[in-house]
Amino acid sequence: MQKNRLEAFSDGVLAIIITIMVLEMKVPHGVDWQTLKELQWVFLSYVLSFVYVGIYWNNHHHLFHSAGHVTGGILWANLHLLFWLSLFPFVTGWMGENTFSALPTAVYGGVLFMAAVAYYVLQLTIIAQQGRDGVLATAVGRDWKGKISPVCILVGILISFVTPILSHVLYVVVALLWLVPDRRIERRLAATPPGE
Amino acid sequence: MQKNRLEAFSDGVLAIIITIMVLEMKVPHGVDWQTLKELQWVFLSYVLSFVYVGIYWNNHHHLFHSAGHVTGGILWANLHLLFWLSLFPFVTGWMGENTFSALPTAVYGGVLFMAAVAYYVLQLTIIAQQGRDGVLATAVGRDWKGKISPVCILVGILISFVTPILSHVLYVVVALLWLVPDRRIERRLAATPPGE
Amino acid sequence: MQKNRLEAFSDGVLAIIITIMVLEMKVPHGVDWQTLKELQWVFLSYVLSFVYVGIYWNNHHHLFHSAGHVTGGILWANLHLLFWLSLFPFVTGWMGENTFSALPTAVYGGVLFMAAVAYYVLQLTIIAQQGRDGVLATAVGRDWKGKISPVCILVGILISFVTPILSHVLYVVVALLWLVPDRRIERRLAATPPGE
Amino acid sequence: MQKNRLEAFSDGVLAIIITIMVLEMKVPHGVDWQTLKELQWVFLSYVLSFVYVGIYWNNHHHLFHSAGHVTGGILWANLHLLFWLSLFPFVTGWMGENTFSALPTAVYGGVLFMAAVAYYVLQLTIIAQQGRDGVLATAVGRDWKGKISPVCILVGILISFVTPILSHVLYVVVALLWLVPDRRIERRLAATPPGE
Repeated sequence: MQKNRLEAFSDGVLAIIITIMVLEMKVPHGVDWQTLKELQWVFLSYVLSFVYVGIYWNNHHHLFHSAGHVTGGILWANLHLLFWLSLFPFVTGWMGENTFSALPTAVYGGVLFMAAVAYYVLQLTIIAQQGRDGVLATAVGRDWKGKISPVCILVGILISFVTPILSHVLYVVVALLWLVPDRRIERRLAATPPGE
Repeated sequence: MQKNRLEAFSDGVLAIIITIMVLEMKVPHGVDWQTLKELQWVFLSYVLSFVYVGIYWNNHHHLFHSAGHVTGGILWANLHLLFWLSLFPFVTGWMGENTFSALPTAVYGGVLFMAAVAYYVLQLTIIAQQGRDGVLATAVGRDWKGKISPVCILVGILISFVTPILSHVLYVVVALLWLVPDRRIERRLAATPPGE
Repeated sequence: MQKNRLEAFSDGVLAIIITIMVLEMKVPHGVDWQTLKELQWVFLSYVLSFVYVGIYWNNHHHLFHSAGHVTGGILWANLHLLFWLSLFPFVTGWMGENTFSALPTAVYGGVLFMAAVAYYVLQLTIIAQQGRDGVLATAVGRDWKGKISPVCILVGILISFVTPILSHVLYVVVALLWLVPDRRIERRLAATPPGE
Repeated sequence: MQKNRLEAFSDGVLAIIITIMVLEMKVPHGVDWQTLKELQWVFLSYVLSFVYVGIYWNNHHHLFHSAGHVTGGILWANLHLLFWLSLFPFVTGWMGENTFSALPTAVYGGVLFMAAVAYYVLQLTIIAQQGRDGVLATAVGRDWKGKISPVCILVGILISFVTPILSHVLYVVVALLWLVPDRRIERRLAATPPGE
């Protein structure tokens, strides 16, 4: 298995996820401002998920930039990540239509959390193959963002049963945290030739 | 981040957008000419949006032909453009089913306008990286089409609340303006080796 | 514009068309044999369209194998072909649910016909760029299949208003005609290095 | 026809299939635990199909890793495999909504079975081109997994009319069988340069 095939397949899946999410924004029957106003939460959920998929796509490239040979373990760890991301259209649509309900907000957080876990497992799998002194292990370092994000999202899930609004705030904060490009990895990898 | 990964991802997203728009043309239950006739505006909206996505795909390639290294800023400017383009299926479906209504016509124009702005920002971001003497800055030149288009679309949005038909005419005129391949860039780039 | 970008985009669009057609086969509510039986025509329409898209994908590669530089004309001739192919999911769904009705059968034929015309125009555009002595012009030769197919489909459209069944037979015959790989081009191109 | 075009097209189709399956998980109207609970079988069907498409994608790469020239026969054998895989979203949705019904369970198995047959035919077609001493023929060897899987699935189809639950168990067992990466081929191919 060559790295570029896995990257191309992942790119394809991510491109489809980011695009079909918009199909959950159903074309309304009305044509007045009220109709448009009712779409606001569906729209904002879509924006949030679009940003999250964008972040995963971006970070995914950083991960594989330094990966060399693709083993069966890496392949399935990658498919595991794609699985959780593939649930984004569903949970985005559900939360968008029921923004102030506890359960859809918690389930959205649950998928975010599992995607973060799957990403972490994928990172570990690649590091395990390169060794603790490999490019990725050095670049990731202490990885405070990768550790603080799942904690924030877990808190978001828990408080969704009390005040879903606060959960949304946390989900947005985590997205903003990652929207800043991961300069740690970028800097270290800049001088590193691709692993292939 | 290598340029070709960003191009492949953008190609994927554009290919999906241009294709799933057709899903907004719902298969009708009737089988007579009247049924077909009722589809005419949905169909024409689809044609217009298909041409717009085709134009963006075409111009997108010209932009990146001369781009060298992809920075985090370029990456997010590109995702920003894809975000507005991803709303095409939604606004195409809404305008197609309510062709002579003001608001869907205005919102369609709004998405066209934001896509034009996002494209302009992406262009500026790439030029900022290359410097004002770079290939793209020279090729784009005064960029009259890039400046006149958003103005026409803004006018289209405003008059949609008076006569939506005139807005449609303007949207079509802007599309025709770009349908003519951008010979400025093409000519200058022809002799330029790819930036990679 | 490089040839491989255009090929990749076309591959993407064709892959999406061939796959989303299946979404027109709606999951039924019943679970008995009768339910399954009622799906037969939708299923057969899907098979026919799947084969047609497969044929176009196959022939598309042959066309571009010998193409060199991609001009603006070739690009828009290609998008024109993709436009008609993008209507396949819609007309397949409509004909599948109304197999024995005249109009859906005629409209399906109409899209087949326009796709054939668009393919022919694309072929002419590439030949015009290579010159009449170019690889493609020589390989295509008299092109009897390219000439007889639209005629058969035109006949199919006309008789759909009398006996739609006969139209279906004609559509299937034309598909079978192309299912046989185009050995003319294959043979000539085998010894020809890619045009890039 | 170059091998990488066929691989890219297949990757695209598989990426779309694996992603649009999630669209069959309709966003529910309710927001309570009962609503979520009712989704469990649809969700588990989705997981199972996701794993199957992942397996096919993985094995597909192994197949083509050793393939050299792509003939018309290989091309259509590959499209035949993609056809059966393209029915996954439909049968997954149907079985997911009617988990304990005989017919949807049998039809799901039928598509699994036909995909296995199509895969086997594709393997034979590639081996026929390479000769019985080719890389793939040697690597596949006796192919016990490729022979036992269709038998298990056939049994699953038959008993679905008695106890659908047992069919599901069999479908899961076959998936687990393949989830273990195909070390036979992997080991032999590791030292083999790509066939292109």
